[in-house]
Parts: sequence; structure tokens; C-alpha cells
Amino acid sequence: MTKMKILTEAELRRIVPLDLEAISCVEDAFHALVTKAVVMPPILRLDMPEQRAEVDVKTAYVPGLDGFAIKISPGFFDNPKIGLPSTNGLMVLFSTRTGLVQAVLLDNGYLTDVRTAAAGAVAARYLSRPDAAVAAIFGAGMQAKMQLEALSLVRPIREARIWARDAAKAEAAAADLTLKLGFPVWAQTDGRSAVDGADIVVTTTPSETPILQAEWLQPGQHVTAMGSDAEHKNEIAPAIITGAGLYVADSLKQTRRLGELHHAIEAGLVTEGTLFPELGEIIAERKPGRTAPEQITLADLTGTGIQDTAIATLAAARAAATDAGTTFES
Amino acid sequence: MTKMKILTEAELRRIVPLDLEAISCVEDAFHALVTKAVVMPPILRLDMPEQRAEVDVKTAYVPGLDGFAIKISPGFFDNPKIGLPSTNGLMVLFSTRTGLVQAVLLDNGYLTDVRTAAAGAVAARYLSRPDAAVAAIFGAGMQAKMQLEALSLVRPIREARIWARDAAKAEAAAADLTLKLGFPVWAQTDGRSAVDGADIVVTTTPSETPILQAEWLQPGQHVTAMGSDAEHKNEIAPAIITGAGLYVADSLKQTRRLGELHHAIEAGLVTEGTLFPELGEIIAERKPGRTAPEQITLADLTGTGIQDTAIATLAAARAAATDAGTTFES
Repeated sequence: MTKMKILTEAELRRIVPLDLEAISCVEDAFHALVTKAVVMPPILRLDMPEQRAEVDVKTAYVPGLDGFAIKISPGFFDNPKIGLPSTNGLMVLFSTRTGLVQAVLLDNGYLTDVRTAAAGAVAARYLSRPDAAVAAIFGAGMQAKMQLEALSLVRPIREARIWARDAAKAEAAAADLTLKLGFPVWAQTDGRSAVDGADIVVTTTPSETPILQAEWLQPGQHVTAMGSDAEHKNEIAPAIITGAGLYVADSLKQTRRLGELHHAIEAGLVTEGTLFPELGEIIAERKPGRTAPEQITLADLTGTGIQDTAIATLAAARAAATDAGTTFES
Repeated sequence: MTKMKILTEAELRRIVPLDLEAISCVEDAFHALVTKAVVMPPILRLDMPEQRAEVDVKTAYVPGLDGFAIKISPGFFDNPKIGLPSTNGLMVLFSTRTGLVQAVLLDNGYLTDVRTAAAGAVAARYLSRPDAAVAAIFGAGMQAKMQLEALSLVRPIREARIWARDAAKAEAAAADLTLKLGFPVWAQTDGRSAVDGADIVVTTTPSETPILQAEWLQPGQHVTAMGSDAEHKNEIAPAIITGAGLYVADSLKQTRRLGELHHAIEAGLVTEGTLFPELGEIIAERKPGRTAPEQITLADLTGTGIQDTAIATLAAARAAATDAGTTFES
């Protein structure tokens, strides 16, 4: 018999808010990715075309951590038609010493939202100008909101613009965010206007054709593209990758296959073997980050198993400290 | 919020015994594998060499079933030194309609034991002689015992022999099984003697060098090799594959990479592209099974995600019918 904690989404929302500690924990994970003998196998992907659905399973083992997480993320794209969110899922945290289940985190995708937004903040911390004050967000979903919230924790954001294909959703998100974050957030009906004068641009959509064009970008801007996590997704014009002064991958192995980089390779703009820095290498000071205020920087985030192991470990530690969750024996 | 069932190992042992229905459910799964548009992605494997540990994640989507399972199987090979079993893990059953979690099966590997033993019974049902009465089991672990128990549900077994590297373990297993199954089970210190006169031979070890030799086999015998589920494992002499009158894979894609077939290919005895029947094709009567009493038949079982989806679906149905488990909302 082994004792484990079972935590519900409501409990996880209470004990793991999107805060500076969550951002640090994801930053440490990227650091570990390049400084430790991390094992991060390719994503397991189950496609159910009949159901318009897919499931991703991610994991990573980090030497020195007490646990490793396995995350199961189903995406069922017809769910909104019946009033359900399209993404769900859970994480399971196992002991790295015995393989026994330590915690079942029934988060319905919430921890993924947190660790994904946290990665955006880490990218901004290392790549955007320290005085970045204006953000442009593409998309009006949960990640659009959380990315902006995460940015505001690491940069002195005082204004933001939201562009979304559905203008009404952009308006609603802008209103919500103005209220929540305490600075003005405007809905923009035109992508180019949203980008004009912004210091940080974050794309958060499932788009399959570029919504951000190369000629819109201005010196000194930082772009984080975090919507693409599959071969067919593509948010930014491939020319942005070759045009940017600095391209950074969360995991180069993944961005070559699933990220924006994949489309630049397919377009013949970049060769498959081209080496680019990874976020962890910049955090670990093995490679330079932004080198000049006028440089255009680009972070290509596909989402990595190590972020899941990091956030699940944080969740389990907070659950232990606050005695949250239900103890189960099996 | 979604409602799910959480079931402990003790509850699962009570509601999903190794019985004829469990065997039928696995048989139906193999049938589906060749008759339906099943999606079964490659196994996700996380290796933690520092910990002498590995984790396998398996899944399969079967059109027409209400759910699909994702199974996480950690193997921590130093666990026995601290009094813990080396394999553990759990299964999660998701709705094929919404992707929402239906059940978390905290089975510590028990359902894997059942579905693995059930596959052995299915192989025996289609490949061994109907009058098979004597079984030889290699190995003295949990699967050794369960494979014999499963055989006795589908064939008129009246005697069995157990061979294991550790003779004391073979003795103990033989004593247990004699008591449990009601027919004599003998420990054998010599593999060849165990095989001599047996109708069915089952190998259940994690051996990395063959423990079953080709020259030991006799006309009419059926062999099931179920211990190999990784590249380096190898229980039977590769010559058995070419010498047998009928070689059958659970999944040819898997046995080419992980099964006994893999070693015959490596030894140059079989070419990579050679087509062999799969168990499901024989169940579905697309290919012949045993064609003569004197034929030597061989089943190479690596363990498939579809067996996990099948047994998890059975477990959830039994839990619903008997109101077993704890209902959780998240």
C-alpha cells in the first residue's frame, strides 16, 4: 500500500496561483534542461480524427528532484459545442526513488496553463527589454489572459492590446484584464496596430496560418510565439525567424518538429541542422540573451515535459505544506 | 466539474479477477486491433539509468468503445532491495466523446498482470492443442503464477512444471500453485526437463539471454514468450522463431522492435520486412492458427496498449455495476 495525495482543480487553483514562485520554478526547469542529465522523451501523441480529438502525453526526469510528472492532455475540439472546455487532463507525480504514485493532480489542464504562462514570463525576463511597458497579445483565450498576467509579474507593463479573430472576444478579454490587472487593456481589430509601439508581442492562438507578419515588427520588440505545439500550427510568418536578431527555442528538438521553426525549415529559410540557442542556455549564461535594446528577439515555445515535472513538484510541495488534498491509500 | 471514479488496488482485485470474462475482453481487443481503425501509438519510454528505472506509457483508441485508457507503468528494479515490488503504476480511463477523466485506476500494476496473463490464455486458446494438459512455466514471479492460472481456464491442464534461475523461488511458487490450482505443480531445476513432455511452454522472465533452447522443443508444443517488452530482453533462442511452424505476434510492429522477433532479425535469421500473422488476425479468422497437432507454435507477446484500454473499460463497467470505488469531482 502506498499513500498519495489526490488534488482537485479547485484545490490546485488555490495552492498554485500564477505567481513569481511558479515562474521561478519553470525558470529553474529550463536551467536544469541544459545543466543536468535531464531525460525528456518525445511526446506521445494519440490522434482520434473521428472525434476531432488528440491526446498528448509529456514527461521529463530531472536528476535531483524527488519526483517526476507524467502529464496527459486531451484536446477534444468539439467540446465547446456541448459547453465543455476543449482541453482537460491531469498530471501524475511519481517518486524518482521508487516509482510509486505520490500525487494525482486532477487539474483539468490548469497546471499546464500556469506552467505555459510562466514560460512566457521567463522568456520575457531574459529576452525583452527590462523597461518593456506595452504588451500586444494575439488571441483572447485563457492563455492570452494568463500570458499578459505573467508578463506583468516580470516587466513594468502599463498598457496592453488584445487582437483576436473574433473582435467581441477581444473586447470581453480586454475588459476582464483591465479590471484584473489595473492597467488599460485595449481590444484592437487590426493586428498591425496592436503590434505598433508594443515592447512585447505574444501569440497564443491555434492558428494554422501566420497571424503575425514580419513587416509589422519594430526594433527592440520581443516576440513570444506559444500557440504552436503541433506540426500543422503556425502563428508567425517564417521570415520573422530569419529576420529576428535572436531566435530562442524552449527545446530545439521540439521546435524543429512542432514549433514555428518547423515552418521556416519547411519554407527553406533555415536548414534543419541550424543551431539556435535554447532558453535554458541563456538562463545558464552559456549563450547570450538580448545584446542590444534595438534587437528583435523571438522565443518559440512548444511546451516541454520538464515544465510539467516542475509545476507538479511545486504543487505537491505546496499541498504538503498546507495539508491540501485528500490522502488516498492503494 | 467532472465526476470520476477512483479505484484502489484492493477494489480492483475484488472486481476484476483473472477470469474467463477478462480473457474474452482481451480476446475482443486483439480482434478489434485488426478489424477496426484502432489507433495505437508507439510506447512512450522514460529511462532513468541513474535509478535503474524505466517508465512505459501505453495507450490505444478503439472506435466504438466509450473510453480509452492511458497506462503508466514504472519499473524500478532496485525496489525489491527495500521491500517494494519493482513494478507499479496506474491507468486512467478517459471518455472517447469528451476526453474527460472517467476513472483513475490505482492498480499498482495489477490490471497489467491480469491483461498480460489473459493474453497468454488467448494465445493458448488459438495456438495450443485443445487437449493440452501439461504446462511448463519459466520464471517464478507473479506472471509465472498468473500465466499458469490463465492457462488452466482455457485448457484442461492437469500438471505443470516451474523452472526458475532461483530454485528456491521455483519450489515456493510450485507449492503455492499446487494449493491454489488443485493439480500438481513441480519445481524443475533443469529447463530441458521442464519442457520435456509439456504441451504448453510459457516464458515469463526478464532474461537478457535465451533460457529456452530450440533443441529442447518437441512436436506439438506451443510456446508463449511474454517476458520481453524491451530491446535488450531475450528469453528464447532466435532459432525457435525460424524453427517453429507458426510464429504469431501480438503486434508485429512491436515484436520487430521489442519482442523475441527483434533478436531473430538482429541475428540475421529473419529479414525486417518478413510478414507474420498477428494474434488478432487468427482470432478474426483472417489467417490460420494451428493447422496440425504436431506443429510447433510460438506466440511473441510484448504487451499492447489495446489490452490496457480493454481491461480498464472492463474495470470501469464492473465498478459502475457494483458501485465500487470512490466518486470524486474535479
